[in-house]
Amino acid sequence: MEVLFTFLPKDHQQQLLREEFPEVQFHFTYKDKTHLPDAQVLVTYGEDICAEDIEAARKLKWIMVASAGIEKMPHEAIAARGITVSNVKGIHKTPMAESVLAHILSLKRSLSFIYESQQKGEWNRKTGSSELRGSTALILGPGAIGSEIGRLLQAFGVQTIGCNRTGKASEYMEEMVPFESILEMLPKADIVISVLPSTEETRNMLRKEHFAAMKNDAIFMNFGRGDLFEDETLIEALETNEIGTAVLDVFSQEPLPSDHPYWRMSNIVISPHASSHSGKYVERALQVFVPNLKKWLAKNEEPTNLVSMEKGY
Amino acid sequence: MEVLFTFLPKDHQQQLLREEFPEVQFHFTYKDKTHLPDAQVLVTYGEDICAEDIEAARKLKWIMVASAGIEKMPHEAIAARGITVSNVKGIHKTPMAESVLAHILSLKRSLSFIYESQQKGEWNRKTGSSELRGSTALILGPGAIGSEIGRLLQAFGVQTIGCNRTGKASEYMEEMVPFESILEMLPKADIVISVLPSTEETRNMLRKEHFAAMKNDAIFMNFGRGDLFEDETLIEALETNEIGTAVLDVFSQEPLPSDHPYWRMSNIVISPHASSHSGKYVERALQVFVPNLKKWLAKNEEPTNLVSMEKGY
Repeated sequence: MEVLFTFLPKDHQQQLLREEFPEVQFHFTYKDKTHLPDAQVLVTYGEDICAEDIEAARKLKWIMVASAGIEKMPHEAIAARGITVSNVKGIHKTPMAESVLAHILSLKRSLSFIYESQQKGEWNRKTGSSELRGSTALILGPGAIGSEIGRLLQAFGVQTIGCNRTGKASEYMEEMVPFESILEMLPKADIVISVLPSTEETRNMLRKEHFAAMKNDAIFMNFGRGDLFEDETLIEALETNEIGTAVLDVFSQEPLPSDHPYWRMSNIVISPHASSHSGKYVERALQVFVPNLKKWLAKNEEPTNLVSMEKGY
Repeated sequence: MEVLFTFLPKDHQQQLLREEFPEVQFHFTYKDKTHLPDAQVLVTYGEDICAEDIEAARKLKWIMVASAGIEKMPHEAIAARGITVSNVKGIHKTPMAESVLAHILSLKRSLSFIYESQQKGEWNRKTGSSELRGSTALILGPGAIGSEIGRLLQAFGVQTIGCNRTGKASEYMEEMVPFESILEMLPKADIVISVLPSTEETRNMLRKEHFAAMKNDAIFMNFGRGDLFEDETLIEALETNEIGTAVLDVFSQEPLPSDHPYWRMSNIVISPHASSHSGKYVERALQVFVPNLKKWLAKNEEPTNLVSMEKGY
């Protein structure tokens, strides 16, 4: 039984896997698909697999995606072969929620102004700081990550409203509405945060009227996927003061091209798709993978966090 | 009955006070002490009153300090006259705790790096971000502000240890130790936060051995008073890597002189005594003052948040 990793865990992590599963032959390779034809299990970040790879991987039965997003995978080829796909949903929630709170608090407590004054050697107490407490946040797509953001916001005395496809209840949301009611909720929110995945339904979901419905000083944060709106729509909303500030961690094109207008705008914070970064990432992915592989080997049991290639999530 | 404010609430706030207390003559003046001899009640930020003022204020019975620090007031002159002093303890807790969390999360999630990369137009994902969750924080002086910081840190999965004079229990601290045990606790803390007032006991309380006992990557935050340690001691601790980073909101001299070595150090964040700033400040101070003045007028009752001029807190 062969397992192929297309990224490299640390030496001690590779060692632990080999000790835990002596019957398994592990291959840890990067940009090298030599072992693809013999692998029954593939562990990947999901961006390096194309339809030809699936064809070559004749014995492949399970793909574990060590990431949350699967939109770059060859869905049809995988679905046609009936290959099981699972992800590591939930392992991003701590670093991502901490990043979202960091950006919100930094805006409220004027950290960017404080850093710039320091660089200029200026003691300037006119920071214009305000408080987060008492704000209202609208969270688009409150799953594992969105609920963790909601939990932290509630600790800061923020009212949380969640918005998802069905409107069914979600943890740490005081109120929930379905997508079709979003226009009614946008005017109430001081902060609008998307952690939505990229699906047919969410692509270009936010249009001109949505930004127009937001408060003029609203903070809009996109930590989901970059195709939630057209870049031009956001630029216009910022230039016409329909909203106050945008904090973006994801973009329609990544890396963000050096001539993209976002770079020249003072009311956009550009986070280079870094909000899920954490020294604990691979460790947590392996904590999901190891028990799943044990059950797979012992009882041929399906892994947790199954992903549907048809639905796209 | 005359009440003198030595700062200027907003017009509508002045109006509300006059409506609420038609029998009181209010004077709202800034740097003008004409009305001092006739005032029975003085509302001040506490930095503009000297011993001569107390002598001139012959009818003065109650000083309400709309701030937490009283170290700049003429303690002996006030105590000799038996004037009641009260403060607005607690009204800083929301903006200050939000500022402390903003700085901690910004360091963990590399916001300064992200802002600088953006200014340079660089897409650089090597942010070196780490997680706050799982850290340990030592809070020196967990009163109203320190406990609020502890409450928020606990929401982020941080272990909280408090340290005060007596070691008696304080809210949102998992453990409490007295000042004399501080050296045992410093090696455990990833973050050391002081919100201590300036008293005889706290002046120069932190010495070389205290910084030496901290972790080499510790974040040290001073949001209390600037005389907690000698500046040279902190500079040496940072230059010899005894600690990782310092975030300072208070200084031995304010404004921080433009030739102070702090300005040239890359591992110090200089916040210009701005952590308690909030658009809601005067509003909250009046929420403390109004009920106190009512009781004072009706029943000659002592105000809440009494401060001892002898003890200094």
